[in-house]
Amino acid sequence: MTELNRLQSAFKQSTYQLSNHGTRNTGVLKKAFEAVADETESDLYGTGQVIEEFQEKMAAFLGKEAAVFFPSGTMAQQIALRIWCDDKGLKKVAYHPLSHLEIHEEDGLKELHGIEAVYLTDPDRVVELKDVEALGQEVSAVLLELPQREIGGQLPSFETLEQISRHCRDEKIKLHLDGARLLEVLPYYEKSAAQICSLFDSVYISLYKGIGGIAGAILAGDEAFTKQSKVWKRRHGGDLISLYPYIVSADYYFGERSGKMGQYLEAAKQVAALFNSCYGISTLPKVPVSNMFHVRFAHPKEEIEPVIVELQQEAGIGITSYVKESGSGSCYFEVHMGDQYEEIPEDLIAEAFKSLDQKMIERFGK
Amino acid sequence: MTELNRLQSAFKQSTYQLSNHGTRNTGVLKKAFEAVADETESDLYGTGQVIEEFQEKMAAFLGKEAAVFFPSGTMAQQIALRIWCDDKGLKKVAYHPLSHLEIHEEDGLKELHGIEAVYLTDPDRVVELKDVEALGQEVSAVLLELPQREIGGQLPSFETLEQISRHCRDEKIKLHLDGARLLEVLPYYEKSAAQICSLFDSVYISLYKGIGGIAGAILAGDEAFTKQSKVWKRRHGGDLISLYPYIVSADYYFGERSGKMGQYLEAAKQVAALFNSCYGISTLPKVPVSNMFHVRFAHPKEEIEPVIVELQQEAGIGITSYVKESGSGSCYFEVHMGDQYEEIPEDLIAEAFKSLDQKMIERFGK
Repeated sequence: MTELNRLQSAFKQSTYQLSNHGTRNTGVLKKAFEAVADETESDLYGTGQVIEEFQEKMAAFLGKEAAVFFPSGTMAQQIALRIWCDDKGLKKVAYHPLSHLEIHEEDGLKELHGIEAVYLTDPDRVVELKDVEALGQEVSAVLLELPQREIGGQLPSFETLEQISRHCRDEKIKLHLDGARLLEVLPYYEKSAAQICSLFDSVYISLYKGIGGIAGAILAGDEAFTKQSKVWKRRHGGDLISLYPYIVSADYYFGERSGKMGQYLEAAKQVAALFNSCYGISTLPKVPVSNMFHVRFAHPKEEIEPVIVELQQEAGIGITSYVKESGSGSCYFEVHMGDQYEEIPEDLIAEAFKSLDQKMIERFGK
Repeated sequence: MTELNRLQSAFKQSTYQLSNHGTRNTGVLKKAFEAVADETESDLYGTGQVIEEFQEKMAAFLGKEAAVFFPSGTMAQQIALRIWCDDKGLKKVAYHPLSHLEIHEEDGLKELHGIEAVYLTDPDRVVELKDVEALGQEVSAVLLELPQREIGGQLPSFETLEQISRHCRDEKIKLHLDGARLLEVLPYYEKSAAQICSLFDSVYISLYKGIGGIAGAILAGDEAFTKQSKVWKRRHGGDLISLYPYIVSADYYFGERSGKMGQYLEAAKQVAALFNSCYGISTLPKVPVSNMFHVRFAHPKEEIEPVIVELQQEAGIGITSYVKESGSGSCYFEVHMGDQYEEIPEDLIAEAFKSLDQKMIERFGK
C-alpha cells in the first residue's frame, strides 16, 4: 500500500472524523428525497416549479433581482465574466492568482471565451483596495473570492469590500463575487448575504460546499444579466432537461445547514487552536474567519504522512485523507468544519491532540 | 385558458397516454435508487467506481476503446467537434441543416468554439453519400444524426452509412455520430450498436430519450480522443463533483429498456398506420424506422388543436400536449413510443382512432 492509500484508508476507517458532513454517498441524495412525493414534476430545460421556486428563494436570499441554477460554479463564473466582457467590449478581467478559474478549470475562460486574466495580487495575500486601484480601467470585471480558499480561507475587511465596490462603480468595472463559500463567512462579517451581495454586480454561490448538497451553483444578478446567463448556460451544455436531483438536494441541505455556519466557525476556531498548540504545526489563518483553514507543517509530506496515519489509527479520529506539498520542504492539508465534529466525544479530541503534540515532539523536537 | 393550456390539460388528465414512458417526475429518480445501498460512494470529479464502471460498460456496448459520461449531449457533441477541428487545424464541420447543434444550442459551437458549420443537404431529406462527396476536404468532421429527428426520424440505409464512412476515412474527414436515438434504430438496421459505431470515429448517445433516464450522455471514441474530451468537459463546467444521480438512473433504465426497442418500433408502426388511416392525417415517415415519427395535418394549428382537445377528453387517451406550426397552414406533433402504449386497452385505441377519423371528416371533409 502506498503512503497515500495508507492515509486514505486510516482516515476512512476512523470511528470519527474531524471535518465535513460525512461521506459523499448516495444516502445523501436519498435522504433529501425522502419527504418528496413521487408525483413532484421535474423541471424542464430551466422551467417548472421546482427550479423556478428555488431560484426565487435564492434571489431573495442574496438580495438580487434574479437567480439561475447552474450545474457547476465553473460554468456559472465563466459565463458571468463573459457577459461583463461582452458588455464592455473588452475581454480582460482581474482576479487573485490562485483563483479557481486560474488553477482548477483547465483554462476554460481563455480556451472557450478568449478572456485574458490579470492577477490582482501576490499569491499569498488577500486582495486590497490598492490592487484594484492599480488596474486603472483596463479590465471589464474584477472577481473577488470570499474567502480566498487557497490561502486558508482569508478575508479582506468589510470596509475594504465597500471601498473596492465603490471604486469599481466609479471606474465602470463590474464586480463579481466568487462566493463558493459565501454562507460560511456571514458569521464573521456579521452581515446578511444580501448586505454583502449588494456590493457586487453578480454573485455565484456553491450548493455543495458549506451546505453539503450533491452539486450545483447559483448565479445571481439583475434581470438583464441573468437572462443572458441562461442563453450561455444552453451554449455550455448546462441547460439540462432535468436538474432537479441537484435542486431538491440543495434546497433540503440549505434548510438543514445554512443556519449552522456560526457553529462551524466556532468549531473551526477551537480546532485551529488545538492544532496551533501542537509542536511544529500552525494554521492559516491563525484564527479562522470561516469554517475552513489550512494546517501547515514545516516538514516534508513524506515525514508527516506516517505521523498522521499512526495518529488516526490510535486515536480513532480521522484528521485528513491527504497531505499536499507546499514547496520548500513543507506541507499542508485543508480542514472544513461541518456536522461531523459535534459527534466526537470531547475527551477523545483532547487525547488526540495531546498525542499529536507528543508524536511531533518525538519525531521533530530538538 | 389558452388553447395550448387546454391541450396540455386534456393531455395530462387522460387516463392513458399514447407515447413515452410516463410523466417525468421525481418518482423516476427514486425508483432508480430503490435498490441502491445508502453507502454507495459518490463519483468524485469523474473518478470512482460508479462512473468508471458505467463508462466501461458503455464503451463495451458501443464497441469503442473508452467512453465518458457527460451531463448533456450539447456539451459532448460540441467537444467532439472541437477536438476533431483542433486535430486538423480547421474550424469547419458539416451537418444536416436541422441538426440539434444548429437549432437547439443557441449557436454554442460558434460562440464558444468559433467553429463554422456547412449544411450537408436540404432540410427535408436525409444525408446521402453525394452530399458528403460534394464537401471535398474542406471540413474537419461530418456529423450524422441517426435518426434525423426533425424530419420525423428518417434514416439513410446501412449501405449509405458504410459508403460515407469509407469516403470520410479516405478524405481524412472525421465522422461523428449524433446517436441521441441510436438504440432506437438498432432493430430497424438489425445491427448491434458496436457494428454501427465502428463506422464512426466518435459517438454520442443520450441517456434520457429512448431509455428514459433523468439526463446525461455518453461520448465514446479512442483513448486519445476521450482523454481530451475530459479536459474540455472540465472547461465547459461539466466535470461535476458528483454526477451519480444521472449515472445510477441511466444504468437502471438502460437495464430496463435497452432490450425493448424492437417492441417500441413495432408499436410505432402500428400507431403510425392508425394515424394514416384517419382522414387528413399522415405520418412522416409513413412507416417508422424507430420509435418516433411525426403526425402531420394539412390544416392550421388553430383548427387542429380543438379536435385533439375534444378527442383526448372523450377517448381518455392522451395523444399530444402540443401542436406545432410547420409553415403554409399545416401543423404537426412528434410521437415517441415507450412503455405507456402497452398499458392502453386495445379496444380503447381502436375507438379513439375511429373517433379521430370521424372528427376530421366532420371538420375538414368535403
